[in-house]
Order: sequence, then C-alpha cells, then structure tokens
Amino acid sequence: MSFNNKVRNTIRSQNSLVCVGLDVVPERIPDSIKKSSDPIFQFNKAIIDATKEYVIAYKPNLAFYEALGSEGWDILKKTVSYIPDGIIKIGDAKRGDIGSTAEQYAKGLWNLGFDAVTLNPYLGKDAIMPFIQDEDRGVFILCLTSNPSSMDFQKQKINGSPFYLKVAEKIEHWNEKGNCGLVAGATHGSELERIRKIAPTLPFLIPGIGAQGGDLTSVVLAGTDHLGEMAAINSSRGVLYASSGQNFAEEAGKVAHRLREEINYIRRKKRYRNQEISKNKDEGVIGS
Amino acid sequence: MSFNNKVRNTIRSQNSLVCVGLDVVPERIPDSIKKSSDPIFQFNKAIIDATKEYVIAYKPNLAFYEALGSEGWDILKKTVSYIPDGIIKIGDAKRGDIGSTAEQYAKGLWNLGFDAVTLNPYLGKDAIMPFIQDEDRGVFILCLTSNPSSMDFQKQKINGSPFYLKVAEKIEHWNEKGNCGLVAGATHGSELERIRKIAPTLPFLIPGIGAQGGDLTSVVLAGTDHLGEMAAINSSRGVLYASSGQNFAEEAGKVAHRLREEINYIRRKKRYRNQEISKNKDEGVIGS
Repeated sequence: MSFNNKVRNTIRSQNSLVCVGLDVVPERIPDSIKKSSDPIFQFNKAIIDATKEYVIAYKPNLAFYEALGSEGWDILKKTVSYIPDGIIKIGDAKRGDIGSTAEQYAKGLWNLGFDAVTLNPYLGKDAIMPFIQDEDRGVFILCLTSNPSSMDFQKQKINGSPFYLKVAEKIEHWNEKGNCGLVAGATHGSELERIRKIAPTLPFLIPGIGAQGGDLTSVVLAGTDHLGEMAAINSSRGVLYASSGQNFAEEAGKVAHRLREEINYIRRKKRYRNQEISKNKDEGVIGS
Repeated sequence: MSFNNKVRNTIRSQNSLVCVGLDVVPERIPDSIKKSSDPIFQFNKAIIDATKEYVIAYKPNLAFYEALGSEGWDILKKTVSYIPDGIIKIGDAKRGDIGSTAEQYAKGLWNLGFDAVTLNPYLGKDAIMPFIQDEDRGVFILCLTSNPSSMDFQKQKINGSPFYLKVAEKIEHWNEKGNCGLVAGATHGSELERIRKIAPTLPFLIPGIGAQGGDLTSVVLAGTDHLGEMAAINSSRGVLYASSGQNFAEEAGKVAHRLREEINYIRRKKRYRNQEISKNKDEGVIGS
C-alpha cells in the first residue's frame, strides 16, 4: 500500500488527525521520572501509552536526540520501535543533500524504523529521490514553515507567485508513487488554502499550533482535503508538558484526546458545509 | 578571533585551500584495514595523518556516520577530536529548523567538536542565528549546490535574478560577527563569479571538483577573493580512495599534495593577473 493511502486509512481507523511531536528536552522531564535509569525513553514510553488511542502519528525531531550524542541515537531507536503498529512513525529530520549522500541519510533514517521523514527541498529532486523508491515509505517536504523567518526566502516571489507554491507544484509532480507529502505551517491560514489548491490530495504535516500560535479552526478548514482528511496536525510541547507532576502522562492523554475532539468538531463542520455547497449546486442555488 | 579570520589565517599558514571530505563508506575501506577493531576511525586517522600537511580543513558529512547508527556518532566524535589544532573542522550537516529546534542541533553539533557547520537556508534567519552567536564558530550556508537538480529551485528567478543570489545577499547581510560563509558548488564556474561579487570577502566552501566534474581552474579563479584566498575547495572520493591497496594513505597524501600545488599555481596566476590589472590601471592603460 502506498504511504499516502496508509495515511488516509490511519486517519479513518483512528478517527483523528493528531500527531504528537516527541521533542523532549531533559530539563523538562518530570522529577518523578528523572531518577529512572533511562528517563527520556521512559518519558516517551509513558507519553505513547497515554496518547496512542488518540493519534495517527508520532514525530520525533532528530535535533533533540542528536543533542544527546550517540546515546540519543539509541534512545530514538528504542522510542521508534515502541510506537505501536498502525501508528505512523515520522522522523522529523529535514535532511537534504546531493544524491549519493541522500542515499546515506535514507539508510540511517530507515534503519531507525521510520515510515516517513521530513526533507528540505532546497537541493531539488536529487535529494528526494533516494527516499521515495518504495511506495510504502513516505516523505513530507518543507513547503511553508511555521517560524517567523519563513518569509526570508519561502515567500519571495517568482513570477508573482511565492516560492513555496513553486515547491508545492514540484512535489505534486514528483508524487508518482503516492508517497510524497508537504510540511505546511499552521501559522499561515490563508496560505495553507493556496497550497491545498495546488496539492488537493497530498498529506500535509502541519506544525505550529499551540506554543507557536497557529489557529486551529483555520488550519483544519484550510489544511485538510475535501473530505476533511489528509492532514497530520502536530502538537509537541502542548502534549508533552501538559503537566510537570506525577500525572504528566494522564494529562498528556487528556490534551491529546481534547485536541482530537476539537479537530474532529471542525472537520464535521467542514464536511457539513461541503455537503451544503454540493446540495446547493445540485439544486442550482449557486450559479442561478 | 572571528571564524572568518581564522579561515584566512589557516589558508596562509598552511599555504593551501584544500579541504578533505571524510565521507567514508565501509565497503570502500581497503582490505588491509578492514580487519582492525575500529576500521572507519582507523581509516580516517590514517587519511588525516597522511594529508594534514596539505589541508586547511576536514569536512566529515554526517550522513555517512548516521548511516552506521549510534556507533557512527561515536566514530565521528573520535575522528573530529583526532584532527590537529590549527586545521578547521567542518561538520557537513546541512541542518535547518525553527529557532528552538536549531538550538538543539547547534548543541549536538558543537558537542561533536566542530569549528563550523553547513546549514540550509530554506527556513531563513531563525535557523541560522543559534549557530552564529560566538564569533569563533562559523557556518557555511548552502547557496548554490553542486548537484544537477540544484536548478529545480536554486536557479528560479526572483525579479530576474536567480534565487541563490538572493541567499548570498542575505548571508552577506547576516555576517555581522564575521562568521558566515557560503557553500557554492564547483560545477557552476560563471555563477561562482556572480556569487563572489555579492559576497567579496566571505569564505566559500566549494564542493564538486573531481567525481562531480567541476573545473579546477575556473573554480579557483572565480571562487577565491581578490587575494586568491577565502575558499575551501573540497575533495572527498578523489583523496580517500586514491588507492585501495595497503598504500592508500600514502596515495591519499600524494593526491592532497598535488591538489594543493595545482590550486596554488592557479592562485599565483590570479594574483599575477590582478597585479597586472592594477599596474595597468596605475599606468592608465585601462580606461585610456
């Protein structure tokens, strides 16, 4: 099965668009778990156990593990293998290098056990190809990121159209095996809509709600496909650090659950609105 | 001392522009060393011992170490600490992420012992800032890469001017502490000249000679500053795999030595030409 079909199936079976970013800094691990022999893995494990019912994906960002050196790499591998089957494992690596080097990156990242990785488009197709050889393994390519300085380059105009739309066009074109998606930040509501028009069915990985300030309603309305699907909406700090007490995992579970429900409420509104539009079209209300 | 001044001083003290890319794949390690307990580190050590007289920098690309998992990370750390003082240690990581994540990447990369790292510009200034806080640590930011698909995005036109020149302009502007440089591929002779005009004194890291086909003469003429300095010209496979026999290190040393001499010959021509131009200017030949 192609990776993108797997995303759609997981969204349906979990009835969720929630992705949890496993971006742990040692300083923020609750005291109750700090003393264990393997605190970061134990923390991830507890978070996964408490949230797995409500999510479609986990997304560890490699930076947080690399900061811990080779030990971090081991913790990451253990964490990925602990994620249950049926939940998507996304390595947020944002790699990008020339073809022969990209092959090495692919080797390292697939060895960690990921189903998909994030990649940077700057080097063009060479940097992407080694990752999309197998249809069951996917990529999310940076299109429009959630940070303030995304404007430095991503919003530069090419023939009147912003650069990130050029990226979206290319990726839509490269998606021959059904395993390419886009990273589109939640901090850009109206821009998300423009990207969705160019890539109507690609899965979008959407970071930037919560700590980064993206508005959930506009993100769900603009970021999902016409069925209210094909988006993975990421929350990291909001879930991981829902509580610093002994009940951290329970609270993380509650936050993930609530986020799923909030998102699903907006999805229902979108589906209802779309049904109304198509009903009105059938009845000739629009265009009459 | 600022990183960029350190680059200039190292170029003068070593009388070289050669950078050696330590991008080792286990399959290509000579049989004579394959049986040792720590073959990749032993290989790197032998290459460093044989070439250190002729180089200004070593540049391990992280992809090749990540492909080996956590053990690769340990080999990389040992390799970096084996590089002698006075030689620049560049981590070819091409990282790029939002500010809070970039801080984690910086932590991991500086912990490995690098003096400088390569970064991807796609996320803008946020992704760069955590790396350029200390003037003695530097960055080389991807401008124009050496791979064929660099044309996909880097050569797109913004107001008639290619995207990579926009990147060069921004980096020239961000170089407040004298620790920013650019990656500019050797496979683009005339484009290198345009980048050099925008960033007359920044250090350029230039991959793409040898296996990738970049022309050495045009690279040295176009890529160095007006003094024939401020460029690190990288060779990886050409040096590492100069021989697959027991004499691999000796042959690597010869190749690095020869490369330095070839480059220095072109640098002398450039300086001579520049002196002639300035002499002619003084004598009123040009413009008369």
